[in-house]
Amino acid sequence: MEKRTLLYEGKAKQIFSTNDEEVVWIRYKDSATAFNGEKKADIDGKGVLNNKISSLLFSKLAEQGVESHFIKQLSDHEQLVKRVDIIPLEVVVRNVIAGSLSKRLGIEEGTEMPKPIIEFYYKNDDLGDPLITDDHIDYLEIATKEERLQLREMALNVNEVLQGVFKEAGVLLVDFKLEFGKDGSGKILLGDEISPDTCRLWDRETKQKLDKDVFRRELGSLTEVYSIILERLGGKGLCTK
Amino acid sequence: MEKRTLLYEGKAKQIFSTNDEEVVWIRYKDSATAFNGEKKADIDGKGVLNNKISSLLFSKLAEQGVESHFIKQLSDHEQLVKRVDIIPLEVVVRNVIAGSLSKRLGIEEGTEMPKPIIEFYYKNDDLGDPLITDDHIDYLEIATKEERLQLREMALNVNEVLQGVFKEAGVLLVDFKLEFGKDGSGKILLGDEISPDTCRLWDRETKQKLDKDVFRRELGSLTEVYSIILERLGGKGLCTK
Repeated sequence: MEKRTLLYEGKAKQIFSTNDEEVVWIRYKDSATAFNGEKKADIDGKGVLNNKISSLLFSKLAEQGVESHFIKQLSDHEQLVKRVDIIPLEVVVRNVIAGSLSKRLGIEEGTEMPKPIIEFYYKNDDLGDPLITDDHIDYLEIATKEERLQLREMALNVNEVLQGVFKEAGVLLVDFKLEFGKDGSGKILLGDEISPDTCRLWDRETKQKLDKDVFRRELGSLTEVYSIILERLGGKGLCTK
Repeated sequence: MEKRTLLYEGKAKQIFSTNDEEVVWIRYKDSATAFNGEKKADIDGKGVLNNKISSLLFSKLAEQGVESHFIKQLSDHEQLVKRVDIIPLEVVVRNVIAGSLSKRLGIEEGTEMPKPIIEFYYKNDDLGDPLITDDHIDYLEIATKEERLQLREMALNVNEVLQGVFKEAGVLLVDFKLEFGKDGSGKILLGDEISPDTCRLWDRETKQKLDKDVFRRELGSLTEVYSIILERLGGKGLCTK
């Protein structure tokens, strides 16, 4: 496989074309952003950790029959994935109340819910990724009703698998954000990444935050807690550690 | 019917008990508020106009089979209505993009939609009445799925009737907010008020705003445009005019 031109550069990843039209080459950057890009930092080791964690979780999902764009990890910072057209929705699954949901509903962070909540956010940086409803999605023609239901079902499946994986690692899966895309044949695949950048992960016992909230709320070293997640999942950490 | 004690005072109305447990006495106040109470003013004549417009619209809805809490107009400022337990949802129906929807989706105000959009907001001043989704409503146990569907259907019915009424009056019904309540037997009735405080109403030709946006955005005299609405609907305006 041959890496070719830069197709897109996001806040956390670069995407390159390859000699195969249906495959792209992803490079995880060593940068952290929060609050829609208002807070930024370069953090050595972050790209490696997210690449390793994400590769590991996509592999575990594949073992349980959840299809994603992931093909394989190439190097510390790089992954090969199937090329998909991203559906402009951030699909958020919540098991425990935290973050914006705590503010929206006025309910204390940490409150467990009897069943998961799914939320759709309109993936649009200029608008600040607003929460949208099924009616809005219909109007914007982002997804058909059938696709919307499929996204819900896939998200709930991912949740079930990941809850099991994290439970074994002593980690509480509070909430997480997924993105989906369509491959050349129109099939919906799980895309983007699954990492402490996109999940809220708390130690089950101590409730210590092991995710990007450490960066957002300045609670300690990001790479330290991301390394804990990688190690608890059975992966090998940074060479420097 | 006898007016008794003040049960509740809101931003625009007072509610009194009566000698009939199932009936309350409403007084429309001469005050205007916007932006969750941040902007306030006393406006002579506003209460009368809203009371008259709302009484008129509830009557027209009743003629078309839409059941509401409205019993009758008592005086310039007063109405008798059935006592209901308000469901803490603001049900918004939108035919044309305006206000917060324009900002949320990044679409120009005035854009017509192929079919109405229904939105639910959590009626909670402390939280700023946030937009919520079906999943949030389920979690908060504000309404069952069946009740939610009934609210949607009732809101769409109201929309159809009101669109007709306003069209005849040369007015475009851009969007509006409804509240619903349950009577003693648990039956859901349309509640609150329907007025230029709770609807966006534009002149069909000139697109002049004939609603509370005149107050919110300081576009002219509130009572002048509310009087236009009342007169176009066939009601009699303020005595002073």
